[in-house]
Amino acid sequence: MAEASGDIQTLIDLLARLPGLGPRSARRAVLLMLKKRGQVMAPLAQAMAEVALKARDCVRCGNIGDADLCDICRNEKRANGEICVVEDVADLWAMERGRAFGGRYHVLGGTLSALDAVGPEDLRIPALIDRVSDEGVSEVILALNATVDGQTTAHYIAERLEGRVRVTSLAQGVPVGGELDYLDDGTIGAALRARRSV
Amino acid sequence: MAEASGDIQTLIDLLARLPGLGPRSARRAVLLMLKKRGQVMAPLAQAMAEVALKARDCVRCGNIGDADLCDICRNEKRANGEICVVEDVADLWAMERGRAFGGRYHVLGGTLSALDAVGPEDLRIPALIDRVSDEGVSEVILALNATVDGQTTAHYIAERLEGRVRVTSLAQGVPVGGELDYLDDGTIGAALRARRSV
Repeated sequence: MAEASGDIQTLIDLLARLPGLGPRSARRAVLLMLKKRGQVMAPLAQAMAEVALKARDCVRCGNIGDADLCDICRNEKRANGEICVVEDVADLWAMERGRAFGGRYHVLGGTLSALDAVGPEDLRIPALIDRVSDEGVSEVILALNATVDGQTTAHYIAERLEGRVRVTSLAQGVPVGGELDYLDDGTIGAALRARRSV
Repeated sequence: MAEASGDIQTLIDLLARLPGLGPRSARRAVLLMLKKRGQVMAPLAQAMAEVALKARDCVRCGNIGDADLCDICRNEKRANGEICVVEDVADLWAMERGRAFGGRYHVLGGTLSALDAVGPEDLRIPALIDRVSDEGVSEVILALNATVDGQTTAHYIAERLEGRVRVTSLAQGVPVGGELDYLDDGTIGAALRARRSV
């Protein structure tokens, strides 16, 4: 499907590899960029080159930022003794969008998995244990995905930290705005077991 | 939703403006790029900067290329006396993917529209009339969209070229692989009127 000239086709092929974009939407995106070369294409290319150059993993928490320590680890207001453990930077961003957590994070970089031979040393679990001793942490909140691997990882971390710090995990229940009729049975069961008096 | 650090958020916002991408998929795309900075992000930024710098409209046909004349206008094998008139570069690419046309193109850059006050002088119609006299054209194929504006534009061009050159348009009928049950009534009617003996 090499209908566009060389350079343009290269750009389409590269864009089409991004998640959520296929060849069709990559073509549409490139056409829009070509029509608005100055306003869209040049700034986008520059922003991308800049991030590619500057972005690095935070040495403390594993978040992505533009320095050795990420924005959150540099922000002293967030040193409230709480660490929220997430699987991935995407999950950290999701937590931040929730605007409910004021502490710091620890990004594991995955979950334990017997199938994929991922052990504690492959994740950033030892670094988490060190942080709990070093930083005067009062609570570790496990915000891992409600999948089998996520829950296995949560159990493992809870065991390792037992007796050293308060370990909590996100509540399970009916999502805000959720309709019971559309929820899976497991969620309804969990919400019932965790029922609260009104 | 400024959950990522400054530069990264700028990149997400710029990407989210592309057609087919929203904030959600832009975030996912940026996360993938951040994970594969070397293999994905740097080449993409470079390809984009290169195209932004080089891309220009072909002075003859309006296609996008990397020189004053596009690849197709430079290719002497395609000077077969046929010009295919399309609305947009996207349509030109679609025709090229069909691999059925061996001539050259003329990109109008839109359609006539009374509502949006687009007249013949706003499109590349005068340039098309000139090309028909100058280039020894034997046939003009109108490959305009089957919309009201597209068909109005086709009629106008056909009238202007009447008696000077053979003017044809794409056949209307059942799409290849199409099922009658799912086709709109207009298409079925058009296919019936244009029926051929087997």
